[in-house]
Amino acid sequence: MRQVPAAVFLIALASQVQADPLPSWNDTATKVAIIDFVEGVTTPGSADFVPEADRIAVFDNDGTLWAEQPLYFQAFFALDAVRAKAEADPSILTTDALKAAAAGDLEGVVAGGTAALAEIMMASHADVTGAAFNASVADWAATAIHPQTGLRFADMTYQPMTELLRYLRDEGFSTWIVTGGGSHFVRAFAEDAYGIPPEQVVGSLGDSEYRVIDGVGQIWKLPELTFNDDKGGKPVGIDRNIGRRPILAFGNSDGDFEMIEYTTTGPGPSLGLILHHTDAAREWAYDRESHVGKLNRGLDEAAAKGWIMVDMAVDWSRIYSGGKAD
Amino acid sequence: MRQVPAAVFLIALASQVQADPLPSWNDTATKVAIIDFVEGVTTPGSADFVPEADRIAVFDNDGTLWAEQPLYFQAFFALDAVRAKAEADPSILTTDALKAAAAGDLEGVVAGGTAALAEIMMASHADVTGAAFNASVADWAATAIHPQTGLRFADMTYQPMTELLRYLRDEGFSTWIVTGGGSHFVRAFAEDAYGIPPEQVVGSLGDSEYRVIDGVGQIWKLPELTFNDDKGGKPVGIDRNIGRRPILAFGNSDGDFEMIEYTTTGPGPSLGLILHHTDAAREWAYDRESHVGKLNRGLDEAAAKGWIMVDMAVDWSRIYSGGKAD
Repeated sequence: MRQVPAAVFLIALASQVQADPLPSWNDTATKVAIIDFVEGVTTPGSADFVPEADRIAVFDNDGTLWAEQPLYFQAFFALDAVRAKAEADPSILTTDALKAAAAGDLEGVVAGGTAALAEIMMASHADVTGAAFNASVADWAATAIHPQTGLRFADMTYQPMTELLRYLRDEGFSTWIVTGGGSHFVRAFAEDAYGIPPEQVVGSLGDSEYRVIDGVGQIWKLPELTFNDDKGGKPVGIDRNIGRRPILAFGNSDGDFEMIEYTTTGPGPSLGLILHHTDAAREWAYDRESHVGKLNRGLDEAAAKGWIMVDMAVDWSRIYSGGKAD
Repeated sequence: MRQVPAAVFLIALASQVQADPLPSWNDTATKVAIIDFVEGVTTPGSADFVPEADRIAVFDNDGTLWAEQPLYFQAFFALDAVRAKAEADPSILTTDALKAAAAGDLEGVVAGGTAALAEIMMASHADVTGAAFNASVADWAATAIHPQTGLRFADMTYQPMTELLRYLRDEGFSTWIVTGGGSHFVRAFAEDAYGIPPEQVVGSLGDSEYRVIDGVGQIWKLPELTFNDDKGGKPVGIDRNIGRRPILAFGNSDGDFEMIEYTTTGPGPSLGLILHHTDAAREWAYDRESHVGKLNRGLDEAAAKGWIMVDMAVDWSRIYSGGKAD
């Protein structure tokens, strides 16, 4: 038998490595199904071919692109922001909820229920320009540490998902975030974290107002919520900002059900995916009983609808983008 | 003197023609200023250089990209849509406003004021899926005839503006429509008319709702206006859908003032432009006293702010994209 020269072997190896667009995905049926779908819609002449302009892929953020336990990370930001404000001016702590927030007393905050959270969101997300808010979130995401993992929040994005986003863009998709979180909040780190520019982040909206101060036109954030981009709001948000029906949707909770349904009930090929948090060892395991990212409808209906349940423990060889590899 | 071969002459001529990105703009100071600005922000190493991602250009639609007299074209669509509906089912004509609309009685409609217009908009823009509405607008724009010019509405886009849009995109700008008109309405023809895809149209929003009918997820248009993308609403709409401050803004009325102000009071280079309708012979001449496209603030303040007043009669060698050249 003729020996294969080392250079040929190395080239073959290199091209094989390069040919795997999803190296942090294990070689399971899930990975095969994703790649099959992408190859079908991108191969000219294929029955499933979709022109680039219509290759729209939408992703939930919390629990889909980064972690969401034990609380949505935007809530951690809000608590940190109230604490920072109170350090500068303690007189802002006019309610029990704000005092609990500034003290980092999560139980006290939770005890106050929705009203307490609304006060904290208002104190941390309003009466500020969009530009100043953006800077404070970007700074927070890059420096603040998650209380349980010890990782920076910015490092708790999912490596397999950033690979999937890049793969889709390389294949002519546009990649969008459609999140129940605030548009301004997510935009502040989405480009660094996911390569997704501000105009491709569709989120919940606090009201805002145009003001001219010292001759400079500015956007000011106001305390009222004007659009809740969750459940049936997600297709509406998609329609408002994208204006076309996506062909791929990826979520993890019941809040994403309608987005995936809207995506997969249009004409032509489509793919719906749900990330199932099954990995208590490397991340968290939760679904029907979780207070964030509750997943009932997806578990009950995904199989009948042909949606793919992504099993984090089985399908992913690595979890977080940052920090050390698992 | 050596004679220049004909081929060389033709090539030189061709490259000169190709080198003018704005052939329907006369060689005035306005054209020079636009090209100077674009060259400044696109030349690497220039003090004014702006990276591609930040080269965001926003355009009003009515009176800026296409005509708006004697009524916003969306109102003509609404009248035609009410008439078509009434032909299928005359029982919908329950009010004087709707009867006037179906009869094409413009004076009757105008006499009813805002309430009449609201009834007509509701009857023509709601209780329909986004997809069906889109199809009906696209069909209307491609076939309906303007009552005074005899041109199709789709032909009454401005040729100099379509050239400017293409020139900016060729130079790495993204081009956006920011319109007081409805997002769904403008998106239905913006790609054909201007090369602007649905996701780059920011407009006023009727409320909408997600419904599942026969297993298919659909967006339904509802009769309430939820966002008025005019005046101070334009910077808010820009912030909601683009998330970055533009560097070029082009409008024609007081409704565009804040958009241009927001664009031109940011850090870095920027350009604000106002189209002044001065051409009663080829289009319409109107400003301070017009019931559509009223222009007072721009006339009073543009010079002090360094915004360019584009004089249609002087700066444009051709008006409409379609129909015969002037």
